[in-house]
Amino acid sequence: MTELAPSTRSRVLAALRDQRVETASWAFGNSGTRFKVFAQEGVPRDPFEKISDAATVHRFTGVAPTVALHIPWDKVDDYAALAAFAKERGVGLGAINSNVFQDDDYKLGSVTNPDARIRAKALAHLVECVDIMDATGSRDLKLWFSDGTNYPGQDSIRNRQDRLSEALAAVYDRLGDDQRMLLEYKFFEPAFYVTDVPDWGTAYAHCLTLGDKAQVVIDTGHHAPGTNIEFIVAILLRAGKLGGFDFNSRFYADDDLMVGAADPFQLFRIMCEIVSADVLKPEAGIAFMLDQCHNLEPKIQAVIRSVMNVQEATAKALLVDADALAAAQQNGDVLEANDVLMDAYHTDVRPLLRDLRADLGLDSDPVGAYKRSGYYETVKAERVGGNAAGWGA
Amino acid sequence: MTELAPSTRSRVLAALRDQRVETASWAFGNSGTRFKVFAQEGVPRDPFEKISDAATVHRFTGVAPTVALHIPWDKVDDYAALAAFAKERGVGLGAINSNVFQDDDYKLGSVTNPDARIRAKALAHLVECVDIMDATGSRDLKLWFSDGTNYPGQDSIRNRQDRLSEALAAVYDRLGDDQRMLLEYKFFEPAFYVTDVPDWGTAYAHCLTLGDKAQVVIDTGHHAPGTNIEFIVAILLRAGKLGGFDFNSRFYADDDLMVGAADPFQLFRIMCEIVSADVLKPEAGIAFMLDQCHNLEPKIQAVIRSVMNVQEATAKALLVDADALAAAQQNGDVLEANDVLMDAYHTDVRPLLRDLRADLGLDSDPVGAYKRSGYYETVKAERVGGNAAGWGA
Amino acid sequence: MTELAPSTRSRVLAALRDQRVETASWAFGNSGTRFKVFAQEGVPRDPFEKISDAATVHRFTGVAPTVALHIPWDKVDDYAALAAFAKERGVGLGAINSNVFQDDDYKLGSVTNPDARIRAKALAHLVECVDIMDATGSRDLKLWFSDGTNYPGQDSIRNRQDRLSEALAAVYDRLGDDQRMLLEYKFFEPAFYVTDVPDWGTAYAHCLTLGDKAQVVIDTGHHAPGTNIEFIVAILLRAGKLGGFDFNSRFYADDDLMVGAADPFQLFRIMCEIVSADVLKPEAGIAFMLDQCHNLEPKIQAVIRSVMNVQEATAKALLVDADALAAAQQNGDVLEANDVLMDAYHTDVRPLLRDLRADLGLDSDPVGAYKRSGYYETVKAERVGGNAAGWGA
Amino acid sequence: MTELAPSTRSRVLAALRDQRVETASWAFGNSGTRFKVFAQEGVPRDPFEKISDAATVHRFTGVAPTVALHIPWDKVDDYAALAAFAKERGVGLGAINSNVFQDDDYKLGSVTNPDARIRAKALAHLVECVDIMDATGSRDLKLWFSDGTNYPGQDSIRNRQDRLSEALAAVYDRLGDDQRMLLEYKFFEPAFYVTDVPDWGTAYAHCLTLGDKAQVVIDTGHHAPGTNIEFIVAILLRAGKLGGFDFNSRFYADDDLMVGAADPFQLFRIMCEIVSADVLKPEAGIAFMLDQCHNLEPKIQAVIRSVMNVQEATAKALLVDADALAAAQQNGDVLEANDVLMDAYHTDVRPLLRDLRADLGLDSDPVGAYKRSGYYETVKAERVGGNAAGWGA
Repeated sequence: MTELAPSTRSRVLAALRDQRVETASWAFGNSGTRFKVFAQEGVPRDPFEKISDAATVHRFTGVAPTVALHIPWDKVDDYAALAAFAKERGVGLGAINSNVFQDDDYKLGSVTNPDARIRAKALAHLVECVDIMDATGSRDLKLWFSDGTNYPGQDSIRNRQDRLSEALAAVYDRLGDDQRMLLEYKFFEPAFYVTDVPDWGTAYAHCLTLGDKAQVVIDTGHHAPGTNIEFIVAILLRAGKLGGFDFNSRFYADDDLMVGAADPFQLFRIMCEIVSADVLKPEAGIAFMLDQCHNLEPKIQAVIRSVMNVQEATAKALLVDADALAAAQQNGDVLEANDVLMDAYHTDVRPLLRDLRADLGLDSDPVGAYKRSGYYETVKAERVGGNAAGWGA
Repeated sequence: MTELAPSTRSRVLAALRDQRVETASWAFGNSGTRFKVFAQEGVPRDPFEKISDAATVHRFTGVAPTVALHIPWDKVDDYAALAAFAKERGVGLGAINSNVFQDDDYKLGSVTNPDARIRAKALAHLVECVDIMDATGSRDLKLWFSDGTNYPGQDSIRNRQDRLSEALAAVYDRLGDDQRMLLEYKFFEPAFYVTDVPDWGTAYAHCLTLGDKAQVVIDTGHHAPGTNIEFIVAILLRAGKLGGFDFNSRFYADDDLMVGAADPFQLFRIMCEIVSADVLKPEAGIAFMLDQCHNLEPKIQAVIRSVMNVQEATAKALLVDADALAAAQQNGDVLEANDVLMDAYHTDVRPLLRDLRADLGLDSDPVGAYKRSGYYETVKAERVGGNAAGWGA
Repeated sequence: MTELAPSTRSRVLAALRDQRVETASWAFGNSGTRFKVFAQEGVPRDPFEKISDAATVHRFTGVAPTVALHIPWDKVDDYAALAAFAKERGVGLGAINSNVFQDDDYKLGSVTNPDARIRAKALAHLVECVDIMDATGSRDLKLWFSDGTNYPGQDSIRNRQDRLSEALAAVYDRLGDDQRMLLEYKFFEPAFYVTDVPDWGTAYAHCLTLGDKAQVVIDTGHHAPGTNIEFIVAILLRAGKLGGFDFNSRFYADDDLMVGAADPFQLFRIMCEIVSADVLKPEAGIAFMLDQCHNLEPKIQAVIRSVMNVQEATAKALLVDADALAAAQQNGDVLEANDVLMDAYHTDVRPLLRDLRADLGLDSDPVGAYKRSGYYETVKAERVGGNAAGWGA
Repeated sequence: MTELAPSTRSRVLAALRDQRVETASWAFGNSGTRFKVFAQEGVPRDPFEKISDAATVHRFTGVAPTVALHIPWDKVDDYAALAAFAKERGVGLGAINSNVFQDDDYKLGSVTNPDARIRAKALAHLVECVDIMDATGSRDLKLWFSDGTNYPGQDSIRNRQDRLSEALAAVYDRLGDDQRMLLEYKFFEPAFYVTDVPDWGTAYAHCLTLGDKAQVVIDTGHHAPGTNIEFIVAILLRAGKLGGFDFNSRFYADDDLMVGAADPFQLFRIMCEIVSADVLKPEAGIAFMLDQCHNLEPKIQAVIRSVMNVQEATAKALLVDADALAAAQQNGDVLEANDVLMDAYHTDVRPLLRDLRADLGLDSDPVGAYKRSGYYETVKAERVGGNAAGWGA
């Protein structure tokens, strides 16, 4: 694939122009491992400053117009003010992420806790998140539960499912007509033995019971070794139950690397499923969100790079010659079919993305432009004193 | 737990007396790895001889009264004669296992093949298996598909699901009122990239669509590293979708070790879920089947040992003090709850099983009795010439 | 194995009487995951209180007479006073564990950092640990490096090895005649991409270069999925390079479960290698240490249980009929050899351990006795105010 | 990286021109999984026909001038004739691969077997392989042992190491001055429990004891999930103990996919270590060999594609700006260092490789040229009757 046909080129550029990636407020705060959080300078100290950072990412990439919030990390008194602040800076508020894992009460679980009082407390938080969605105009409630057990016997697997089911139903009933619940699964962590929503099957089964407003969200870092994630994408799309992605990458455990950093070919294969099912466009209702933390690397720059990684994988997926692929598949030509896919993957799409950015009136080099903008130096100077945002802050 | 209370003892013995484990005809034939099949002496040369071996296992264990067949490996002209032969020897014919993976046509898949002709051929085989079930009086059709792809792009994941779905529906419609379809999943192998039914979620989704006669079967050796199998047991039981088990064990890849050999604690935890949901008894409809091959070790002896391993794990699970466990769980006493479970696990149940065998009029030492019986020497002398049974034979 | 022969019984009891398990000071402080540390009541606030807890574990188990320290978590002005305090309570100070992973300077590595100033700082800490060993009389310096990289390209794998090698040599040269360096490896965490000492091979290669005072330590929770740990035990013993164990267990990632909790059969197999090489006795120089944290469960009670788990696995390993095993192995009798091993594993050794404790003048039920002792209620009442110990505290 | 500087371009082309990839004779024969070998038409029926196929690969790629043999699969009466036949076709005979895994005697092991007679037989085969090397002029003896055990207790891990060590020493002593022994390790398969050479550490330890002519070979498909292979490359290169590669790829288990097919980014990272240590050139003594089988896909075409995959990964590795990378690493600029690497990876090197082929007088499209050559049609017509080559054939 040396030269793109003009029609291909315009099709790909149009699709990339419409693509939307949602950033996460917590990516701009301090983070780390269980061993150490290495503090960075210039880190936001409140939700407004996080939104400024997110707006900066959008300013240089052009495809990241919303930012997800995490409650209570991003709790404010006046969400309308927060939304207005965001709007002024060119971005909007995205999904609301609940947090029922950082309170001493949740030691043995939140909505699955054997203690009814604690379950009620957790549920109240989830309902409060829907209240906040009403205030922010957010469409999606993203639910991740750290619930699980550490030791065999610690609690009844089945009873915990019953409690989970009950809580999900209560939240579901609270959702407005245009609101959705995105249920996340995670293979392991932080529970050591049982995870109450460990795989797509569990999330799917709950969402199916709940109804159309409940959808599964795939966090790309939340699978057992060797899992074929694009298979899950395909299967959930086929079932009409894929609500979105939490993008990140990982080699073995912690899921905080920039999406595409550990296995760019996997990201490409995932985006191929999206493109082939024609659900890239925003109106298809798949939320493409980043959920990663930047422990060692500069945060804003890493988020910009992550958005670009998603764009590059998408561009390659858009370049797959669908007709040639279908023909080779139908003919049982294993090598030809693989070759059609690899031809797109091997293509250097960076020139194309530079053109896209020029079309959008952006600098063709988002990272360079961000560095040259002086934004980081400014916030580093300004954001002195106060509490740097971070998990639990 | 030093002495069992008489009521506990009689409860446990009664449950163990009713337990049923189904053996597999192919476990008595030669098997191996992709590198080499090491032939053994005395191996059966036809389905009748396999049934003799299965009957021998039942004679010494008392809890293995049925044997599963594999079609076409166990194809005979007259299934009534085969059933009568089995009955004479004290056993019955169990599940019918289909085989759509050993024909050159199935190189790129059976029911998921892009070629409609091959799909039709595979479907015809599955329907033939139901015909055989009618003849043998078998309740369960066990479906395992080796279908998948080796290379990214080789075929459309989604189209393959559509084709799979279509074939399953056709087979389902062919089932009689008292017949069931057990759909097996497998994380990997023999396909290298996509497996068309790789996890319980995929099997569950298909079975849900099909209806009540479609159930998921858990092969204990078919999961990603780190998967919590007892969680899957619990979740399928809760959903009313667990049809049975294919028991075996493995350390990394090949799933052919004797059940309980690689991780006896895991087998115990699985049986704990069974016992706590009160579905051990045959009328609960969970089929407990062995599906393993004995590449290096003597086959009949290994099957006897496998049946005993299931019994031992079950006996331990039956010893769990359910009330104490529930109380500790409700109190959030992590160590006490774990300790209640471990107390049962650490108990040496072999004396109890010796008593059970005495009650059943069996030798208390099944392996020893089998060895002393001279059965192996007899068949070794008799089974000379002909083709030793094996995969594909 | 229903009754033990008197000679077996006395051999096993004698071996168990001599067994030594070292506890870890940090197991008594607060700990958690990257998401949350759930605080417990009664947690020690300084090294002295940690030693009191460790002494309590020894009081009820009789086989945990030393406690490992972690520097700087257990830094005190006067180590002689700390040692005297320990001695008064019936325990001694054990291995010194260094910490070069919780300083902002170590963000990109400690002894492998590209910056020479930071490498020098890390080395100075390691040398200080040897100074402390001189003061405490500790034999072993345990080195675990969190060093690694998160992203491909971040640093040169080879240069980092060179820097590591240089630092290890400098520390080695500082060791006294009766001091040893135990080098730990860890498959992953907290680095996401490269871990500078990820496997036994790397640790072994460095120790071989260094000399006899450098030995490998196996942390049972630090391996890739599917790794055969007892193989590593055997191979390091054969090479004379096994210095000891950090015991704990895990299902997938975090290595903080009580040893034997996740896979008791694995622990048994590990102890079988120890017993068969006759290196259980303290004079063989293998340090058996616990390295685990108790996030959800009561800490002292969990450490007692962990010591008991090691004892139970050891007792079973001691029961293996070595002659019968060797004969079956030599005869190529796969099932008989496995059966000899399993016979020991299935034995309930708890009565034997109760007898051992009676012989030692201990309560036969260490956990029960500890609970009845009122120790926990006392410290809970006393340890109010101050800073609860924990990682980084 | 839009345009290559002329000096870069000529450096990269020169390096690629000198690159050598060795093909494997067995890649041209039939192969499969333990479930089924799907036969292909036109498969060679003897070593001469395999060499013709290998020569065809070289004819279209220009960088695959040698072919490895497998004994006894490629046993012939007259190796000089075989070598002459190869030479005529433009290729040479490469490494000799031993086979001590396909004889009934090796059921419980070859050189590690508890039976001395079988060990002697296995050793005799290895020595015979050196005899064949003398006849073929091969430099390298590649040793892969399928030895291991299936069940805990089956055999003594340590005794097996002693027996392995003894056999290796005997073979080592038999090597001529210009001959080497390449010892391969494999994480699992075909043994289910213990593998006698499971990791690089074990292979390394044996090679270190043996001496300079013993080197470790890395098969890219032989590692635990999550293993960082490029780390092993770096560490073995640093130790002077890397003898070569067996290239292939895999997703979970079977290691037979075309190299670079499952994770092209990993292959690139491996080649980066090779390039950065300047050991790409043949005189550095690293053997770059393919070891993969093509179960579903056409074999010759797949081998051509595999050679091209190695070339593409190498070309990208050669494009890494080493000075910029070193500077970013030294500065601790995590994102910049990663970016330098990714810049090379994202480059489309296919135009460069087309130029290389033009320089070499080859068609710029090796797969297309091969297809157009009619070679496959010819051999399909000719190779009728006889026994198609395959494992064990």
